[in-house]
Amino acid sequence: MSVLIVGSVALDYLETPFGKMEQALGGSATFCSISASYLTENVRAVGIVGGDFPQKHVDYLTSRNIDLKGLVRIEDGKTFSWGGRYHEDMNTRDTLYTELGVFEDFHPVIPDDWKQSEFVLLGNIHPSLQIEVLDQIEEPKLVVCDTMNLWIDISLKELKAVIKRVNVLILNDEEARMLTKHNNLIEAGKKMLRMGPSVVVIKKGEHGAVLMSKDNYFAIPAYPLEELKDPTGAGDTFAGGFIGWLDRTGDVSVANMRKAVVYGSVLASHCVEEFSIEGIRDLSEEQIAERFNTFRTMSTF
Amino acid sequence: MSVLIVGSVALDYLETPFGKMEQALGGSATFCSISASYLTENVRAVGIVGGDFPQKHVDYLTSRNIDLKGLVRIEDGKTFSWGGRYHEDMNTRDTLYTELGVFEDFHPVIPDDWKQSEFVLLGNIHPSLQIEVLDQIEEPKLVVCDTMNLWIDISLKELKAVIKRVNVLILNDEEARMLTKHNNLIEAGKKMLRMGPSVVVIKKGEHGAVLMSKDNYFAIPAYPLEELKDPTGAGDTFAGGFIGWLDRTGDVSVANMRKAVVYGSVLASHCVEEFSIEGIRDLSEEQIAERFNTFRTMSTF
Repeated sequence: MSVLIVGSVALDYLETPFGKMEQALGGSATFCSISASYLTENVRAVGIVGGDFPQKHVDYLTSRNIDLKGLVRIEDGKTFSWGGRYHEDMNTRDTLYTELGVFEDFHPVIPDDWKQSEFVLLGNIHPSLQIEVLDQIEEPKLVVCDTMNLWIDISLKELKAVIKRVNVLILNDEEARMLTKHNNLIEAGKKMLRMGPSVVVIKKGEHGAVLMSKDNYFAIPAYPLEELKDPTGAGDTFAGGFIGWLDRTGDVSVANMRKAVVYGSVLASHCVEEFSIEGIRDLSEEQIAERFNTFRTMSTF
Repeated sequence: MSVLIVGSVALDYLETPFGKMEQALGGSATFCSISASYLTENVRAVGIVGGDFPQKHVDYLTSRNIDLKGLVRIEDGKTFSWGGRYHEDMNTRDTLYTELGVFEDFHPVIPDDWKQSEFVLLGNIHPSLQIEVLDQIEEPKLVVCDTMNLWIDISLKELKAVIKRVNVLILNDEEARMLTKHNNLIEAGKKMLRMGPSVVVIKKGEHGAVLMSKDNYFAIPAYPLEELKDPTGAGDTFAGGFIGWLDRTGDVSVANMRKAVVYGSVLASHCVEEFSIEGIRDLSEEQIAERFNTFRTMSTF
């Protein structure tokens, strides 16, 4: 199988109660791709960077078997950069700045031989760019869309057009409430299912995750972490793990998606333990299997 | 086996976005006892009411096999009454009034032949009253303590003295954070385990529940409810279901406590669906078994 991932690639500035990091490798495509690469081999990334994007990052991503043929490099441009500060509780954050750089004029171009990718992950970018991707791909087996509160705020119409055309919508609880104007997540989930996708996955951070389809309700708690250093990219990492497992198995049944939710949660739990991508930079199969098994044992009664 | 439950019995005034209810049967001992009565037969309630307490409530509780020998009735006094208003999200509430009535001079007296009850649930009342109960009971198999934010605020020293002497502490996530001054619930749990109990259960409302011991971590999501009418008594109902299952089985292993957490969650999910005790007034074994099974299937992957 093969999974096509489109999203942002960034050099971020991060500030959390645990410290700061400048020029931190980030972006939705970055986290999604790295995460997926632990579960499947054929990961294809589409994005854009500037001339300032360090070669070491390219080398690292390539070392993880991520195909970067779709990563455009604009030598005289600057890589997208987001600066954020997390509050004490880590659940809220302030955006310090957003420098679009080369991202300002980005229009994803899917290489011809990638247009028939079986699995497509529309990482968190402007919905109009997600639509451009949808218009280029040919009969994918499954399309997953991730998004964020910003697009619900400023591009709701385009976002709804995307949601209509995807199989799985992934978002967090706050976004689900914003999008549907329902406080109750079950109601919110049902409403989103009426908007197009056959499956909705709601990420609840420290409270776990929920998967809903017409006839299915699946919920798991979060992996118990004592220390959380940097939540940046956790949602992208979740989405990457989710689609990575589906691509590895080629099985898009809801039963298999339950496992995909667990893999997404496992990868995300590693992600938040360190700054930037450090928590998922170099995981072993054993580390992933161990947490997967913990998810089983911790919910058994 | 037998379970001794001490707590408040109240006639409440409730206001939620779904309506109002006056003279609503309430109180921690009430919810705990009714809930436990679905799982075990020998439920013994200790509390106090005034002359205004309707006979129909006594009849109902008795019909559920709850032994009310420990329920004192002060004919010329008024039953404890709490008035509360819930906000739109149901997670926050304002106390409109608290009329202690006969509760003001309440000192729980455990009937002699109840002093050797195997299981004891210290329902949510002032910690100094919980201590009075602890001083009267003789070698119980297990003591469970429930509490609330008010006591952490105004009677921390007494509360800590209670916690030191119980086997299981039950509280909600906000209270766990208040009590330990740790924002992270895993850290909070560990700190509470160092305060005395061998098991801590953290209720997280719509996010489920967590059980922690030195070597055990168990977490379940909440039962998916589309409509929640009145959260009053949900925590007490949880505690009653928890100890009811332990009493029924006589098994205080942590493995069995996992099942007890699920039974507590099942009963609490019924409780919040209607005002006052209506959601748990008359449940069938099938209704309880069905939700118990849903807890299993919804977390399976």
